[in-house]
Amino acid sequence: MNYKMMGRFIAQILLLEAAFMVPALLISLFDQAYKAAWSFVMSIAVTAAFAGLLLFICHKKKNGFYAREGFASVGFGWIALSLAGCLPFYFSREIPHFLDALFEIVSGFTTTGASILPEVESLSRGILYWRSFSHWLGGMGVLVFLLAVAPGHSRSSGFTMHLMRAESPGPKVGKLVPRIRSTARILYLIYVLLTIINFLFLFAGGMPVFDAVCTAFGTAGTGGFGIKNDSIASYSPYLQNVCTVFMLLFGINFSCYYLLLIRQFRNVFRDEELRLYLGLVAGSILLIVINLKDTYSTLAETVRHAAFQVSSIITTTGFATTDFDQWPEFSRAILLCLMLVGACAGSTGGGFKCGRVLLLFKSLHRNIRKILHPQKVQVIRNNNQVVEEEVLDNTNAYLAAYVVILVLSVIVVSLDNFSMTTSLSAVIACFNNIGPGLDAVGPTCNFGDFGILSKLVLIVDMLAGRLEIFPILVLFSRSTWKHR
Amino acid sequence: MNYKMMGRFIAQILLLEAAFMVPALLISLFDQAYKAAWSFVMSIAVTAAFAGLLLFICHKKKNGFYAREGFASVGFGWIALSLAGCLPFYFSREIPHFLDALFEIVSGFTTTGASILPEVESLSRGILYWRSFSHWLGGMGVLVFLLAVAPGHSRSSGFTMHLMRAESPGPKVGKLVPRIRSTARILYLIYVLLTIINFLFLFAGGMPVFDAVCTAFGTAGTGGFGIKNDSIASYSPYLQNVCTVFMLLFGINFSCYYLLLIRQFRNVFRDEELRLYLGLVAGSILLIVINLKDTYSTLAETVRHAAFQVSSIITTTGFATTDFDQWPEFSRAILLCLMLVGACAGSTGGGFKCGRVLLLFKSLHRNIRKILHPQKVQVIRNNNQVVEEEVLDNTNAYLAAYVVILVLSVIVVSLDNFSMTTSLSAVIACFNNIGPGLDAVGPTCNFGDFGILSKLVLIVDMLAGRLEIFPILVLFSRSTWKHR
Repeated sequence: MNYKMMGRFIAQILLLEAAFMVPALLISLFDQAYKAAWSFVMSIAVTAAFAGLLLFICHKKKNGFYAREGFASVGFGWIALSLAGCLPFYFSREIPHFLDALFEIVSGFTTTGASILPEVESLSRGILYWRSFSHWLGGMGVLVFLLAVAPGHSRSSGFTMHLMRAESPGPKVGKLVPRIRSTARILYLIYVLLTIINFLFLFAGGMPVFDAVCTAFGTAGTGGFGIKNDSIASYSPYLQNVCTVFMLLFGINFSCYYLLLIRQFRNVFRDEELRLYLGLVAGSILLIVINLKDTYSTLAETVRHAAFQVSSIITTTGFATTDFDQWPEFSRAILLCLMLVGACAGSTGGGFKCGRVLLLFKSLHRNIRKILHPQKVQVIRNNNQVVEEEVLDNTNAYLAAYVVILVLSVIVVSLDNFSMTTSLSAVIACFNNIGPGLDAVGPTCNFGDFGILSKLVLIVDMLAGRLEIFPILVLFSRSTWKHR
Repeated sequence: MNYKMMGRFIAQILLLEAAFMVPALLISLFDQAYKAAWSFVMSIAVTAAFAGLLLFICHKKKNGFYAREGFASVGFGWIALSLAGCLPFYFSREIPHFLDALFEIVSGFTTTGASILPEVESLSRGILYWRSFSHWLGGMGVLVFLLAVAPGHSRSSGFTMHLMRAESPGPKVGKLVPRIRSTARILYLIYVLLTIINFLFLFAGGMPVFDAVCTAFGTAGTGGFGIKNDSIASYSPYLQNVCTVFMLLFGINFSCYYLLLIRQFRNVFRDEELRLYLGLVAGSILLIVINLKDTYSTLAETVRHAAFQVSSIITTTGFATTDFDQWPEFSRAILLCLMLVGACAGSTGGGFKCGRVLLLFKSLHRNIRKILHPQKVQVIRNNNQVVEEEVLDNTNAYLAAYVVILVLSVIVVSLDNFSMTTSLSAVIACFNNIGPGLDAVGPTCNFGDFGILSKLVLIVDMLAGRLEIFPILVLFSRSTWKHR
């Protein structure tokens, strides 16, 4: 294992994080919230000092950076990011328990949006900003950001490829352009642009600047931390609809936007994953609207709430305009199913991903054809390209790991003796980076009442969900630590 | 598609079934329950007449029986078996609605044991016998029985192999001896012997003959239909412990018994699936006993109930000695997990099967090793033999099909607006052929209150679960019906 290179790499992540804390510090100073400001100064100092120490220890260059180093770097990088990121919450005593503070920031970086806070309006604005900003940074990925801006990595493409593969969501890493670094830059450019457009739409609808910035962060990262206790419910229908549309947009594979930019419209409209995603959204809204019938006073209101909740759940954002936990069982079951499916690969959304669902169905269909005609060689095509067997193997392994982690987590969380629906939906909500679940973790409730063990399991689930399991699993594997 | 051969094959199944109804008819006559006796006469007549008609239509021989014919025959064979099997319930008016009667017999043949009856003690003994016997016939498989006894099939081994593969549970069909027909005979011989021993143990403990026969049928097939309203709870602790042991025995791969018979003890004790199965049982009992602490008056009683429920659930039998729905959430979650895992491949138990769980974990581990060392070729071994990639592919496809059917079924069943726990556990209990679930379908409740659509879905789930999905999925696939 190339520890030196990993150490330097983690140090870079921490330095970047310290720099990103500065705006939150400035907001706190502007608000004259000196306690919060002091906590940011302390956090920046501790984070930078630790990064400096790491750089000092790992100053010697050593070559050899392979897949296992890539995966382990991503796993450890995110753990370091979270440990440093929770310091402002903890130092300011706005979240007095360390584990709660860690839960909150992991929920932020992994774009989950599950909160242990019973109410958020009493937090200082600097802390609220940092909480929402964590979604934005985690959404596209801190490593992708590092690749896009940091100098020096462009030379070793093996290095960057391994990192990109480990952090990017989806069954396959799509390079938009031959060079990984340019791909990372294009992705972040699209991300920044879309976030700004989202902000402008919210601002135009009369949302205050601070609210609009934080809401845009939460939408862009498909995170779900709100700055109001009732999430998005108190904003105007126009603002809610803006959120609905932008949540959906941030759940689409970003390579589609790149294709639009280079004017390959046909490929976008023919994209099978995009079609499945939009079809699921439309179908779910329709079924829920029918199922809700007389719940709301007008059809328009029903459609608005249904559309908002469906986009919020399938993109794994987790904003809410209404308490969907009160909806009939059929609607709740659809939402639970959407939680599992999740958004498109290569978006900021979490979950199993539409692209993987598509591959599963196709490989299932191939298996039936194989049973019927054992002699024929059968290939699977996606967007008219043959899918490599390795991608299918990975998808299957992903499903297996997913089910195993889900079942084991539910068993541990059920030790807290909450209802089955609570335990199950809490794990699904964290593992798929959604945020609110059902029953005792519904949109009007929070995760504060879970025990220490459950919170630890849910923290691991959130990280495993965001990094798509393997970078976290690899840390627990013996062969990672063996000498070659 | 070779319809003629399929037709003759289904006719044979029906004739066999008509013959098996005769004991139930005799019991009814002995009890002077003439209405029930009349219903059996009618059912035998209808079934035999339909079989005769099929034989008449399909009298011409035609060669060519391939995998698709095998799978489709098994699918249609089981549907025909169920449609004929429910006639006695329906004709005797002891279950007045046809769909309910069908649900009950499908639950019987698939060894599920889920009942729509609020109480069973008012049923006539002939009907109760038929209900319990359906477990025994379905447990080892009606086709395997046909292969073991029917003449004429021994010539075409392709035919028998395809049938055996489609009906036998587990990731791989194990031939005990080179000839399939001898394998089928050995399996049924072990099955009959174990059932008789089970009966003797029950009888020796003071259980009435009729009760002992029916309970032995329910245990041997890992079915779970009882002939008392409180399942096994009112029998003595000795009888309950006998059931615990025999449920576990019938959940073990029958090839292990064959190995014992031919004195290959070492291979039995080294069998990885058996070890996992026994380990899961022991671990679950231990955890539940700790979790239950003060629920029962003595430790011995706690252990007895925990051991009984764990064996009943992991073997997918579904007998109960206590209302485990009242247990704490942790114990309930463990039981729900055991429901998913199920018994060993090649046993009469249902579920995902321990053997498949083992393969999934191994293939997951291989995937991690592949990530770490992409250049190395990695193989998976089971009991020191290399597992073929095809078996792994099938296991993965099975998991995918399993998850898809589970999620879609829960969505449809939730239309009845029962609690999430009810809908989820009802589907799991039917799909894994267990019987009782949790909440409104707990061990003291029944499936009678579900709507027509839910019952239909659950019937399909039971059949898909027993036949391991593909023989049922194949019926819905277009390429099954295409001309070659």
